[in-house]
Amino acid sequence: MKSTVARRMDGFSPFYVMELLQRAKELEAQGKEIIHMEIGEPDFPTPPCIVEAAMKYIQTAEVKYTAAAGLTELRSEISRFYQKKYQVKIDPRRIFITPGASGAFLLALGVSLNAEEELLMADPCYPCNHNFVRLMGGKAKFINVDGQTDYQLSAQLIQQNWSEKTKGVLIASPSNPTGTIISGQELERSIKQVSSLGGHFFSDEIYHGLVYGKKARSALEFSEDVFVINSFSKYFGMTGWRIGWVVVPENFIDAAERLAQTIFISTATHSQYAALAAFSDRNIAELEARKAEFELRRDFLYENLLRLGFEIAVKPEGAFYIYANCSRFTEDSFQFAKDLLEQQGLAVTPGKDFGNNRENCHIRFAYTASIAKITTGIERLEKFICQ
Amino acid sequence: MKSTVARRMDGFSPFYVMELLQRAKELEAQGKEIIHMEIGEPDFPTPPCIVEAAMKYIQTAEVKYTAAAGLTELRSEISRFYQKKYQVKIDPRRIFITPGASGAFLLALGVSLNAEEELLMADPCYPCNHNFVRLMGGKAKFINVDGQTDYQLSAQLIQQNWSEKTKGVLIASPSNPTGTIISGQELERSIKQVSSLGGHFFSDEIYHGLVYGKKARSALEFSEDVFVINSFSKYFGMTGWRIGWVVVPENFIDAAERLAQTIFISTATHSQYAALAAFSDRNIAELEARKAEFELRRDFLYENLLRLGFEIAVKPEGAFYIYANCSRFTEDSFQFAKDLLEQQGLAVTPGKDFGNNRENCHIRFAYTASIAKITTGIERLEKFICQ
Repeated sequence: MKSTVARRMDGFSPFYVMELLQRAKELEAQGKEIIHMEIGEPDFPTPPCIVEAAMKYIQTAEVKYTAAAGLTELRSEISRFYQKKYQVKIDPRRIFITPGASGAFLLALGVSLNAEEELLMADPCYPCNHNFVRLMGGKAKFINVDGQTDYQLSAQLIQQNWSEKTKGVLIASPSNPTGTIISGQELERSIKQVSSLGGHFFSDEIYHGLVYGKKARSALEFSEDVFVINSFSKYFGMTGWRIGWVVVPENFIDAAERLAQTIFISTATHSQYAALAAFSDRNIAELEARKAEFELRRDFLYENLLRLGFEIAVKPEGAFYIYANCSRFTEDSFQFAKDLLEQQGLAVTPGKDFGNNRENCHIRFAYTASIAKITTGIERLEKFICQ
Repeated sequence: MKSTVARRMDGFSPFYVMELLQRAKELEAQGKEIIHMEIGEPDFPTPPCIVEAAMKYIQTAEVKYTAAAGLTELRSEISRFYQKKYQVKIDPRRIFITPGASGAFLLALGVSLNAEEELLMADPCYPCNHNFVRLMGGKAKFINVDGQTDYQLSAQLIQQNWSEKTKGVLIASPSNPTGTIISGQELERSIKQVSSLGGHFFSDEIYHGLVYGKKARSALEFSEDVFVINSFSKYFGMTGWRIGWVVVPENFIDAAERLAQTIFISTATHSQYAALAAFSDRNIAELEARKAEFELRRDFLYENLLRLGFEIAVKPEGAFYIYANCSRFTEDSFQFAKDLLEQQGLAVTPGKDFGNNRENCHIRFAYTASIAKITTGIERLEKFICQ
């Protein structure tokens, strides 16, 4: 009886969209053309600057371990990036390079969350967030959010939901799946609220950079006592390179160092050297052009989804997702997504992947496909709902 | 009071050798030449086949996420490797690609170990092993081992130390720091013992391949119901690439899939494509030549340490370490290592990094340096102890 799966895995949700992805592959193998609007990954290739830097480094054949916290040069680059982008001074010793934001979450929660403690988070949200909490023996306490607060937590919601067991709060802005942003004012109020309650503040900023027509504020602009998770995957277009970072409060540096030694040894060295090229002017110019393209797609998809009768509570201002209410067409968005794939060859992500807050009447559309492909996707969607 | 480091971190040992490494860097910055025999990383460059495969792949600029478990082709390659090397058939679905053996440990223990459960392991052993257990809320139960059992656990030791709380056993062979190997017979007996006690068996095989004059047996030769951790870092010479794998029992596949999605998303894609070249005949020929060089170094270092008066309970047969008893010279091996670095510029790892079993009278020497450098190291060591 002992040879069984650990209890923590009971509460680990899978990605339901994987079932759709699997079916999409089968259909593609049969020669069908599938339009992919389910994938949370930029469709652009790795930026040329990054490829060049990686090639140059790998040629040396000296791809050895780095320090657990990452290359000193890269930590300094990131520190300069905070200075330039947010006008905040971050000691590079507080910056830890990690294998993607996934590694950043492991490190941040590993050094700060005790078993049985609760972390407040919004529902809907990215499904892995509560899995990380569970891995540490903690519990996610979900707070249902909607368009009223831009699908974000607020100082008031935090206060209302705080209990003896609460250890902290996670805010993700721009949000996956909604693409919505917390205002600077509300972010500041929330940080102060959590601080006055004696808790930890975790800010998931992995979609920073992909924000349209305004600027997302970093939690680091308001406090030194926050954990900030970021990544080279989304804005910087380096998904498969598996590299991100976390900024920890000063008093967590030593623990983060010890935990990183154990769980990573270090982050992939060639990815770290490649990322050194991420902040160059030439690369930023390339990324800004991509961002402009994402914004066009957002507008195009948004207009068309509204035209077709989807409800979108808040126009998304960041990331590359639109979280659309499809209750006009279905009360089972998972089945809707399956049928849409089967009958029209359009893949989208069901609300079920993002929580338990009216998930059955929501669909996430990712605009990680060209305008041409999105156009075809919209045509197929229209056929599907008008049949 | 809540804003404090999580309790699990109390028991997380650091790498004490880092203090020495730091000092070594300072001395090098002052122009001193340091001989490094503290580093658990092959000194050879990345094998040419790997570099070529990586360059070819990165040029495509399509470094996107893979499936969480890794590339199907790579999992199949590893399955073929088990067939060829150990004559066992492993379903590729049981093989998960991970960010190094560190990721493999996270995955194996994450899906199998509950909070409060104990894992038996040898002392001395690799320091991170008990940290992983602690991360899962479990407890490492250390069993002191010595030359009598080749510094390995045995079926008898397992039986003697098993309790109500024991969930399983970890065996690492070849062992870090001792380089010793468990015999096939004892490995089989131990697996049967654990199975009859209803526990899990974890086999750390990351130094397989680097075994001299004999062959290490895989736990997979004796049971399908074992977790086997392996890596491309040591034999395959891919440390900084951060890629390894774990083989899980059939009934853990689903949980491992869900956990991998959360904690990795996937392993660095360029490292996975590079690793596809690891099993080619040309690469294996290169690696076998390196292995022969490691064996020469082992013999050379072993003879010289004995000559100088170090005691070595068992001649190591694998990995690239010699764990030497230095009690003839000191009762504080950490201080000994510090003085040796300061006075002679030779860096070694203190026993303190590997547990609490007569650690103060042991030093680990790594032969991850050329014979020329080891020769200089020995000269310096001789001067130091004869002064």
